[in-house]
Amino acid sequence: MRDGTGLGAIRIVLSHTSHPGNIGATARAMKTMGLSRLYLVEPRYFPHPEALALATGAADLLDAAVVCDSLDAALAGTVMAVAATARHRNLSHEVVSCRQACHRLMSETPRGEVALVFGTERAGLTIAEIGKCGLIATIPTDETYASLNLAQAVQVFAYELRMAIDTPGDAGVEAAVNLAAHDDVERFYEHLEKVLYETEFLNPAQPNRLMQRLRRLFARARLEKDEVSILRGILSAMQDKGK
Amino acid sequence: MRDGTGLGAIRIVLSHTSHPGNIGATARAMKTMGLSRLYLVEPRYFPHPEALALATGAADLLDAAVVCDSLDAALAGTVMAVAATARHRNLSHEVVSCRQACHRLMSETPRGEVALVFGTERAGLTIAEIGKCGLIATIPTDETYASLNLAQAVQVFAYELRMAIDTPGDAGVEAAVNLAAHDDVERFYEHLEKVLYETEFLNPAQPNRLMQRLRRLFARARLEKDEVSILRGILSAMQDKGK
Repeated sequence: MRDGTGLGAIRIVLSHTSHPGNIGATARAMKTMGLSRLYLVEPRYFPHPEALALATGAADLLDAAVVCDSLDAALAGTVMAVAATARHRNLSHEVVSCRQACHRLMSETPRGEVALVFGTERAGLTIAEIGKCGLIATIPTDETYASLNLAQAVQVFAYELRMAIDTPGDAGVEAAVNLAAHDDVERFYEHLEKVLYETEFLNPAQPNRLMQRLRRLFARARLEKDEVSILRGILSAMQDKGK
Repeated sequence: MRDGTGLGAIRIVLSHTSHPGNIGATARAMKTMGLSRLYLVEPRYFPHPEALALATGAADLLDAAVVCDSLDAALAGTVMAVAATARHRNLSHEVVSCRQACHRLMSETPRGEVALVFGTERAGLTIAEIGKCGLIATIPTDETYASLNLAQAVQVFAYELRMAIDTPGDAGVEAAVNLAAHDDVERFYEHLEKVLYETEFLNPAQPNRLMQRLRRLFARARLEKDEVSILRGILSAMQDKGK
């Protein structure tokens, strides 16, 4: 799984891809840049002859692709996930360029596995999917025509990941910290949501909006293992007090 | 032909392209990055329905494409031509990375038109064609699998040309956010500390250590005004529940 470059620790995640040809072209784009770990969240058609046809010499990546029934499953165990999106939604996520995001991803690989997540051809990632990522990355495009094909977007990111090996950027070398894994953070969100229901702060008619705001806040902070423990301890103490 | 960015002075030249789909995908890749001037040297099939199908919203570039009967004709009037090739031939040409080449091309645009030349899908550019260019540019690829699709290679170059417009920057586009003022954040910490006492989570003998951890967490997130309001709302709801 691991190589000296860090590229072996990077998962390329395609969520709900419609056209199998794009999965094949993605595999080819990945392999040219030395990436190998393809994750597919509920692809419409896979395996499929068209995927194989467009993969050319990268059929081994399709064979090894991990098909998941949820984005959570695809992100399980990762220490960082970046959402690739062309759309500027009004979110309080940090938005960085493709190049910066790739530097950040590469700089995280010594700590664990990381993921770069792409949405559907037509609509990109959903708000809920972006909520599970810590950072939004965009490829700068022409203002009047931003219609980058999925596999071409993957190609540009894969290229920048490879370039980031040789040209370490200003991603900043953070102090070595023990980041919480995706699944631990998800369990914290579940716990938080439960407590917010119990305290009647969360409007059961509209729970998502508030939880999305809180997800973005904690995603920016990038929670460490210890911090998740502390926060869950606080939540438990509040539950005990409220009884 | 010219715009403020210099992208209007760049010709993308495809020499002897076999598959019309690649011409269409190239047009799309160009247009996403703001390039518009496509030159085709003796394409096998053009115009062609497959080119149109893959161009998606970039059919205007196909309509305006200049079909030439020689590379010389396609390069006529240019002040610089760069040969894009994956192969390392033993030539006395200067070989630079895709990124470097794009910087060079962009820096030449105030002087006149420049060209970036791509060869056939199977064999790339001939020695004779490379001889008509001033510089060789390569996209770094995996050593064991360098099979970049033609349109994907164009996409990477087009992306680098666009990135080269604002080189010094690349500071990334951070979302415009309304950060909370220092004093608002401090009041949040006071409120949090009070609630932690009330829930008996905070050890009164050693309150600082935990609060410092929590401060560090929220400092990393850089709280926004709205978020401070939400967090304090949650704290108040918890206090009400605990009464």
